[in-house]
Amino acid sequence: MAQCVTHAGPIVAIGGAEDRTSDLEILKQVFRLGHRDNTEVAVIGTASGIPDQILPTYETAFTRLGAAHVHTLDIRTREQAGDAHNVRLIQQSGIIFFIGGDQLRLTSILGGSATFRAVRERLANGAVVAGTSAGAAAMPGTMIYNGAAADALRKGAVNMSFGLGLVQGLIIDSHFLERGRFTRLMEIGTTNPEQLGVGLGEDAGVIIHPNRILEAIGPGHVILIDSRKLASTNIAELSMGGAVALEHMILHALVSGHGFDIDARRYLQPGELSLCKGDRR
Amino acid sequence: MAQCVTHAGPIVAIGGAEDRTSDLEILKQVFRLGHRDNTEVAVIGTASGIPDQILPTYETAFTRLGAAHVHTLDIRTREQAGDAHNVRLIQQSGIIFFIGGDQLRLTSILGGSATFRAVRERLANGAVVAGTSAGAAAMPGTMIYNGAAADALRKGAVNMSFGLGLVQGLIIDSHFLERGRFTRLMEIGTTNPEQLGVGLGEDAGVIIHPNRILEAIGPGHVILIDSRKLASTNIAELSMGGAVALEHMILHALVSGHGFDIDARRYLQPGELSLCKGDRR
Repeated sequence: MAQCVTHAGPIVAIGGAEDRTSDLEILKQVFRLGHRDNTEVAVIGTASGIPDQILPTYETAFTRLGAAHVHTLDIRTREQAGDAHNVRLIQQSGIIFFIGGDQLRLTSILGGSATFRAVRERLANGAVVAGTSAGAAAMPGTMIYNGAAADALRKGAVNMSFGLGLVQGLIIDSHFLERGRFTRLMEIGTTNPEQLGVGLGEDAGVIIHPNRILEAIGPGHVILIDSRKLASTNIAELSMGGAVALEHMILHALVSGHGFDIDARRYLQPGELSLCKGDRR
Repeated sequence: MAQCVTHAGPIVAIGGAEDRTSDLEILKQVFRLGHRDNTEVAVIGTASGIPDQILPTYETAFTRLGAAHVHTLDIRTREQAGDAHNVRLIQQSGIIFFIGGDQLRLTSILGGSATFRAVRERLANGAVVAGTSAGAAAMPGTMIYNGAAADALRKGAVNMSFGLGLVQGLIIDSHFLERGRFTRLMEIGTTNPEQLGVGLGEDAGVIIHPNRILEAIGPGHVILIDSRKLASTNIAELSMGGAVALEHMILHALVSGHGFDIDARRYLQPGELSLCKGDRR
């Protein structure tokens, strides 16, 4: 399948609850992915219901890591999303970070805005774009914004809509192990087995390199659910709410240093990952 | 792998919270599996911390279904587990049912007892043995009795011991979707990929037919995690608590009427299942 969107810069999707006060293991990796000649960071608070409490924690963390400036963008309205000053702050940043909260708030406020176009341009020009929790879930072309946790293997149990479209060919779910969200990605896998399910645990994340190699980072787990070889499902025959059957999905659990080739559907051991990361298309 | 234990009667493992007051969908199937010439049911309350509250609900349900007698066995001590009267009630029953609670209570009280030997003999002679929740989890040769729910993909996060040994070659977990227990079976799958992981949702169950064909029953889901083709794992290299990586497990979700051939590792669509069920060894 052709990938419509390419990204020159790396994307980092984080499962939420990453360490922001101690070792900063994941944020350190985000920061190091940036170009040394531009260590300005823009932190976008839109997804959060309490940005004034959360934004300062990222400001402190990135400052500790050595950022030249940390711009905290408290964008809460569509008007602010079109604000020229906010656009300029994004344009001058080498790292753009979406904090957590509600992915629908994020997309409904930023979608189609001048600030979001600036994010997309920065990514195309090699900047790092990272996001945690809602900020990670919103990254693909299609995102989950709600869904039963207990048994999402019911037709219609997962609510989806357009995401930010920064990366294609996959679906991202966060707080994945902690909130038992396996069934959400399983249901989605039956609706279209083409899309790779990426389940991010807390304090875990993936770097999606521009050559579409995925690299696990952080102390937590990254679960991949690969449905491409799905043998059968009843999803199309069911009424809404019906119990979904599925035959043959493939499951992987990655830990820090392990990787995955998204398009070739190939698990990469640490040694293989090192080789692949250098191979930028 | 040779299966050491054969069972002449069917085994039914239920994920917990099965309907006991309305349609009795699962209990009806348990009851119908019994021979028509013996509709006495023995319900064993040992796993439960509140057997006096729970046992009557099964008595009412099986009576509604047409049981000639329902014997509620409130066995709480090893002495009671050796009681000749309890043994006789089991010996005369066509269906033996283990209620839920704590599987360690069940095995530590019944293990090696005369009543449990009677259960094993009844199964060998064709009686139905069913269990829900803890009563299901305890059935295999090795059982889970405790484990972190959030992220059990950590070496040592799942506590296991000997189960009742009524069925071999698999591990059973209950309340599986509702409590997000995928990672428990994934961890166990890395420790020995031979064993099939059977994750039972609430109000769902499996009939394990004597020819080792598994049949899903009830409105809920049965998740299977098949690790036989596991490509790699780091489990042996980790310290206790370390994050487990795994490459390639196979995932199925069965709904009522779908089946699985445990030894051939083959998913059975409803039509195939009907054919296989008749094929008793």
